[in-house]
Amino acid sequence: MISLIRQPLHVFYLVVVLSTAACNNKSHNNMETEKETSLFGKGERLPAEWFRGNAYLQPLIAKDKNNDFSVGSITFEPGARTNWHTHPKGQVLIVTEGEGFYQEKEKPARSIKKGDVVNIPENTEHWHGAAANSKLIHIAITNFKEDIQVTWLQAVTDEEYEKVNNE
Amino acid sequence: MISLIRQPLHVFYLVVVLSTAACNNKSHNNMETEKETSLFGKGERLPAEWFRGNAYLQPLIAKDKNNDFSVGSITFEPGARTNWHTHPKGQVLIVTEGEGFYQEKEKPARSIKKGDVVNIPENTEHWHGAAANSKLIHIAITNFKEDIQVTWLQAVTDEEYEKVNNE
Repeated sequence: MISLIRQPLHVFYLVVVLSTAACNNKSHNNMETEKETSLFGKGERLPAEWFRGNAYLQPLIAKDKNNDFSVGSITFEPGARTNWHTHPKGQVLIVTEGEGFYQEKEKPARSIKKGDVVNIPENTEHWHGAAANSKLIHIAITNFKEDIQVTWLQAVTDEEYEKVNNE
Repeated sequence: MISLIRQPLHVFYLVVVLSTAACNNKSHNNMETEKETSLFGKGERLPAEWFRGNAYLQPLIAKDKNNDFSVGSITFEPGARTNWHTHPKGQVLIVTEGEGFYQEKEKPARSIKKGDVVNIPENTEHWHGAAANSKLIHIAITNFKEDIQVTWLQAVTDEEYEKVNNE
């Protein structure tokens, strides 16, 4: 820096401006990187009948002769969650982004985040969704029992949801 | 900036140093973010008998009474790939990071990258792995036919691999 101090004022001005520009550019790239971290598109909005808040499904694999399951990526915006429901042959969740909850009826909620895997048992009433202050994105591998994957039940009430978020 | 020009030299020096420090800090955070983008740990090294180069398996879900498949995350370092092989009841690949190839015998290779999904048919000779200049990480959902998931065949030769990378 000794040599810099010998430079005229406009050189310092230039260095400050360039440094700031470089930082802004990095910040811009960070935003783009963040946009690119989601593995898949959001897909289509899921129905309000079975989901509270904004939840979306991007289908990845349909059931076929080899795969007795479907695979999809589900995005829950902050506050969004499933109704209570059951799967006749279970479901595997793989969290790819964000944070949220998985809760079985009459049990404490489990906090889940990016990298977590949940192996949901058959015929077990439960819900999953985003935290109030974070989105949640998970892959779901949902097994079929004959032609059925899920039985939908009542909504997770605001009271139930707030209790879990405040614990 | 007019008011800044009236400041003594050490103020400019301070601004330059702080700007640079802020940038360095962001760069450091970028590195940490990059480290944290991998969804899962690398797991255990896969055997040289069936994999060329450095490949690793992090198991996520084992076969059980509901899931007639296993799920794992496989990391291929640049240049690493499977041998040629077949699955008796197919396999689903979900690329979570990097770039590489999927190739069925006698067909052109398909370039695959983060967010791509491959539904591999049954009894179809193929290989997958990283590009020569990029790692590849994918989730694999591998169906069972009775107790068998895979039949391993010959290695992908350097000649075969270089041809695909140069196309």
